[in-house]
Amino acid sequence: MMNTTYSSPIVTVDSVVFQLVQQKLAVLLIARTNQPFAGIHALPGGYVSAGETTLTAMTRIVAAKAGIELADCGVVEQLYTFDTVARDPRGHAVSVTYMALGRNIMPQLRSDTHYPQFFPIDALPEIAFDHAQIIQYAHERLKSKISYTNAIYALLPELFTLSQLQTAYEAVVSHPLDKRNFRKKILGLEIIHETDQTFRDGAHRPARLYRFNTQVVTNISSF
Amino acid sequence: MMNTTYSSPIVTVDSVVFQLVQQKLAVLLIARTNQPFAGIHALPGGYVSAGETTLTAMTRIVAAKAGIELADCGVVEQLYTFDTVARDPRGHAVSVTYMALGRNIMPQLRSDTHYPQFFPIDALPEIAFDHAQIIQYAHERLKSKISYTNAIYALLPELFTLSQLQTAYEAVVSHPLDKRNFRKKILGLEIIHETDQTFRDGAHRPARLYRFNTQVVTNISSF
Repeated sequence: MMNTTYSSPIVTVDSVVFQLVQQKLAVLLIARTNQPFAGIHALPGGYVSAGETTLTAMTRIVAAKAGIELADCGVVEQLYTFDTVARDPRGHAVSVTYMALGRNIMPQLRSDTHYPQFFPIDALPEIAFDHAQIIQYAHERLKSKISYTNAIYALLPELFTLSQLQTAYEAVVSHPLDKRNFRKKILGLEIIHETDQTFRDGAHRPARLYRFNTQVVTNISSF
Repeated sequence: MMNTTYSSPIVTVDSVVFQLVQQKLAVLLIARTNQPFAGIHALPGGYVSAGETTLTAMTRIVAAKAGIELADCGVVEQLYTFDTVARDPRGHAVSVTYMALGRNIMPQLRSDTHYPQFFPIDALPEIAFDHAQIIQYAHERLKSKISYTNAIYALLPELFTLSQLQTAYEAVVSHPLDKRNFRKKILGLEIIHETDQTFRDGAHRPARLYRFNTQVVTNISSF
């Protein structure tokens, strides 16, 4: 460590893990077992040690508190660093936050019982610290990100129908989209392509299955 | 502070201040006076104290080291938090970085002589720490940002010709743009409007002056 008497804020991490649950955007929360905010829901997070990166710390903490491998998420990116002085009543803690997008994520109950669980973002319980603000920031980032990248692929299975894709976009932007305009726009972006496979849902006509051109986040607007 | 023996990384800030200098994108650097990297150029940065936000610290440090008021920049936004363990030889320091976009910024030589100066990003001197990587990250963010927002307004005067605007875009994307396509695209975005004023440059025909619709960063792509 530095040879200094400087009093620095503590470095922490918090993670916003999103997935679709029953066609709704949902976020991973744990129930806190300790004070402050014991019994209240919060994002999985914790302290960073000198000598580990924030992503290493985040991966360690999400595995320990929710049994989830962050590396299994299709997109993991640093979000923003929240640093207001009063955000943690225990002292000034700067939180480097991450957003992860995944699918079929199954949180595991750990021995220290933090009850990890996905909640639809339109029906969140009471939230500890400034984590409601962090979730809102992540949601805005995600809305913005799907408007200029293909990042929504991380919320979808490898093969999907145009209806499924529209449902995913609608879940993120929180309002219905016109089917005809949506299909015209999405096909015009040239980020997905038709496969020769179809999907039959009950009595409906079989629907064509599509696939993203790439499973790497790619900018789709340009100058 | 927290009642803990936890060893946390130190929190620092570094700032990437961009402006156009002679039609080129340029970044503010200071010459370091202390070890490590004494005499080598670096971004203006320093330590964050417990009890101040990173933006407060950044504003204090940029004023102290370069005589620049960050608040005078048209855009100031948090960029990314750089956290690799070996980035500072003195110990693990997590740097919350900011990008600022301005114009007519005049660095002041301070009494502790850090020689603040703008360098074109295509002709940078040797750079200390991981600051070359931070500058590159900021440049990529800026390229991306001008493709989906109106943020380039912060690099331009309030009134500008379409040629000046094209020059600004070209300075950021680092390659020439086709004049006809550029004008069609920029007018189609509906982020600027014509004024009734013109500008005469020497023997050329007077050129129409334009103005941004808003001096607030606004998303221009949408779903």
